[in-house]
Amino acid sequence: MKQKRFILSEKELPTRWYNIQAEMKNKPMALLHPGTKQPLKPEDLFPIFAEECSRQELNQTDAWIDIPEEVLDKYKSYRSTPLVRAYDLEKALGTPAHIYFKNESVNPLGSHKVNSALPQCYYCKQEGLTNVTTETGAGQWGAALAYAAKVFGLECAVYQVKISMQQKPYRSMIMRTFGATVEGSPSMSTRAGKSLITQDPSYSGSLGSAISEAIELATTTPGCKYTLGSVLSHVTLHQTIIGLEAEKQMEMAGEYPDVVIACFGGGSNFGGLAFPFMRHNLLEGKQTQFIAAEPESCPKLTRGEFRYDFGDESGYTPLLPMYTLGHNFHPANIHAGGLRYHGAGTIVSQLIKDKLMEGVDIPQTEAFKAAMLFAQTEGIIPAPESSHAIASAIREARKAKESGEEKVILFNLSGHGLIDMTAYDSYINGDLGDYQVSDDEIRRNLQDVPVV
Amino acid sequence: MKQKRFILSEKELPTRWYNIQAEMKNKPMALLHPGTKQPLKPEDLFPIFAEECSRQELNQTDAWIDIPEEVLDKYKSYRSTPLVRAYDLEKALGTPAHIYFKNESVNPLGSHKVNSALPQCYYCKQEGLTNVTTETGAGQWGAALAYAAKVFGLECAVYQVKISMQQKPYRSMIMRTFGATVEGSPSMSTRAGKSLITQDPSYSGSLGSAISEAIELATTTPGCKYTLGSVLSHVTLHQTIIGLEAEKQMEMAGEYPDVVIACFGGGSNFGGLAFPFMRHNLLEGKQTQFIAAEPESCPKLTRGEFRYDFGDESGYTPLLPMYTLGHNFHPANIHAGGLRYHGAGTIVSQLIKDKLMEGVDIPQTEAFKAAMLFAQTEGIIPAPESSHAIASAIREARKAKESGEEKVILFNLSGHGLIDMTAYDSYINGDLGDYQVSDDEIRRNLQDVPVV
Repeated sequence: MKQKRFILSEKELPTRWYNIQAEMKNKPMALLHPGTKQPLKPEDLFPIFAEECSRQELNQTDAWIDIPEEVLDKYKSYRSTPLVRAYDLEKALGTPAHIYFKNESVNPLGSHKVNSALPQCYYCKQEGLTNVTTETGAGQWGAALAYAAKVFGLECAVYQVKISMQQKPYRSMIMRTFGATVEGSPSMSTRAGKSLITQDPSYSGSLGSAISEAIELATTTPGCKYTLGSVLSHVTLHQTIIGLEAEKQMEMAGEYPDVVIACFGGGSNFGGLAFPFMRHNLLEGKQTQFIAAEPESCPKLTRGEFRYDFGDESGYTPLLPMYTLGHNFHPANIHAGGLRYHGAGTIVSQLIKDKLMEGVDIPQTEAFKAAMLFAQTEGIIPAPESSHAIASAIREARKAKESGEEKVILFNLSGHGLIDMTAYDSYINGDLGDYQVSDDEIRRNLQDVPVV
Repeated sequence: MKQKRFILSEKELPTRWYNIQAEMKNKPMALLHPGTKQPLKPEDLFPIFAEECSRQELNQTDAWIDIPEEVLDKYKSYRSTPLVRAYDLEKALGTPAHIYFKNESVNPLGSHKVNSALPQCYYCKQEGLTNVTTETGAGQWGAALAYAAKVFGLECAVYQVKISMQQKPYRSMIMRTFGATVEGSPSMSTRAGKSLITQDPSYSGSLGSAISEAIELATTTPGCKYTLGSVLSHVTLHQTIIGLEAEKQMEMAGEYPDVVIACFGGGSNFGGLAFPFMRHNLLEGKQTQFIAAEPESCPKLTRGEFRYDFGDESGYTPLLPMYTLGHNFHPANIHAGGLRYHGAGTIVSQLIKDKLMEGVDIPQTEAFKAAMLFAQTEGIIPAPESSHAIASAIREARKAKESGEEKVILFNLSGHGLIDMTAYDSYINGDLGDYQVSDDEIRRNLQDVPVV
């Protein structure tokens, strides 16, 4: 019998994160101060983020950053995650492709998010802070932060996008089990939330609106910092533990990926898996293809514009050079709550611009169809977000079948879908639909983007 | 940093199950035919179970049974499960004890149940059957069977205890995602169900009632066999993969358990972990202590009687020699649905009778208090069932603290609690209570047990 799962021993775990910014030929453009429109220095970010995270965010020099001992120790509770060869999925597809997935769903919090929650909370604690706050969509980031905050003895307050809170009530219960307080966003507890509710009392929120509320809480509360689950470069940096492990594990399997795929919300699980492999494209001329799978209903990579835009809906964040649908874009209520975000991280945006990777957009029902096939072959019910990566991997495996190529496909199973069962129920009952975005809607929202 | 997780490579996985019956000095007493009251032969079980399972059930000769290649191949998708040293829990308790847990919660179905679902479906398929059916309480067994049936190309129908279906709606959605049909029990689709509903229209079901319905379906449907998730000896046999792995993993950790603990419903996760270690007590005079943790509200091990009784509520099963509260006992609606069963498996019953192991009973709120501490230290939200094992392990760790002993405690984390978040929500809101059973209620129910 052939080996299915590849796992690293604790001694083999990576001890450094990989900072791709340092090795990109065209670096991401500078973040700009929203008031002065001047390039940001780390100090400008200190009021919002932990100081070490602020420095990491703008670090374009050091390719390798040491993982603190205390964080490594916590990583060891659940890492390495398995690299799995999906033999049964391959068989069902009748493809000659070799399909591998990195299974980030088996960690205690059920998604990759904890990889960055732990260092962010660690740095906050080190810097003498007492509280952290954040936004969350589907709740995977909120749950991870709630746990990490408990680990390092911090209080934690989470703003969860209202529609996700309703779709996935168990996630807020998970956060409360770890001791966090959770509020639906937009809420009446912040200026930003009140203003959004006044404009549209029925608005069910987005990541952009929840970010505004959390930043407002952080900047108005002593001892409290804001933390983010994706988009920013320091978050993606922490997630490179995924790809660094996968690199060693693919070596154990005796293969190297021709295609690397991950779903795409802000970019952290994508970059986390992809960047350590992309390094070999940048430095050694490898020709691996990189695909970021976004939802058809929130198509910033495939149909957005590369512009300076805010990271949040109320314009509290720095201006980020990114592919965006406009910070006022309200994504449809798809079940992949973690992908309902208007913009892409600055690194990925630069890479797309330089054609070093590509985006694809996946309709919701195609994602669920792929998820059902994956569940019934590999026995794991994937998160709706991760299902976009599966759908994209299946597209590639079908292409390989047509061309007869033994392509090696690697994708990230960023999380499980056990908290998303109502979405599966809707799909099985035929109640799920797709949501196309009109050119008009994109144009209209891009008009609100500030001109720099 | 000390090693936290111990994982076996695929090559190191056990290839045989351990059948403790063959090495017990006092064998379990014979199963009796419910009509003739004569000892059963394997053929008598063929109308209900797969033939190979029937033979395994009554096998008191062979200590080791080969795991079929096809089952081993499926085990490799998720095994070995990690053995974890719970350093953070130890620290929180301030105990000198070394606490280890076998983490069966990280397999794709979220509990140990899949370990037996796979071979049961495999044998059914081998024997040319087309359908399987079963009962399920919390739904962990039903989900595992639904997946295993899909793997081996069988149709699957599940009767889920009504109260559990209401408490944990996601579990029936999981079963449907794997292609199974699910009905609440008691249902109107069987004679047994109709009779129970007639007696008490508000009855929310128990494992005993759901078993009756599934057996009725199996015995009246050509090509369909019944499968069981616990209680019976062949189920426990399959679960010994847990303890056989744990034995090797404890060796990797350089320790041997002084106490082995698991929660107790019918006995399969308990026996699965315990029996490979108990072997060394039986054969080599080791003095390891074995504790089965049952709910205070369903105390068959601590307050039941050793009697011949039916395994189900309607009296369809053979008569089993077991500790029982009477097959008509209706357990309180605690959230640990998998522990709401009136009897204990025949092997464990004999071992208790011979004082080779012991039972403890845990109040529901103590189990949830233990679960919260475990979640907040180890980052894993445990199943309400498994929380009984955690509570018992914590009691032992506290005793070790008082006596200053460096006791080695090993318990089974049989499943995660992500589908049980409403139970945690109730606990956090102070809405959960305890349920004591009166001596009178036990006496009354034992009057219905047939005299053999």
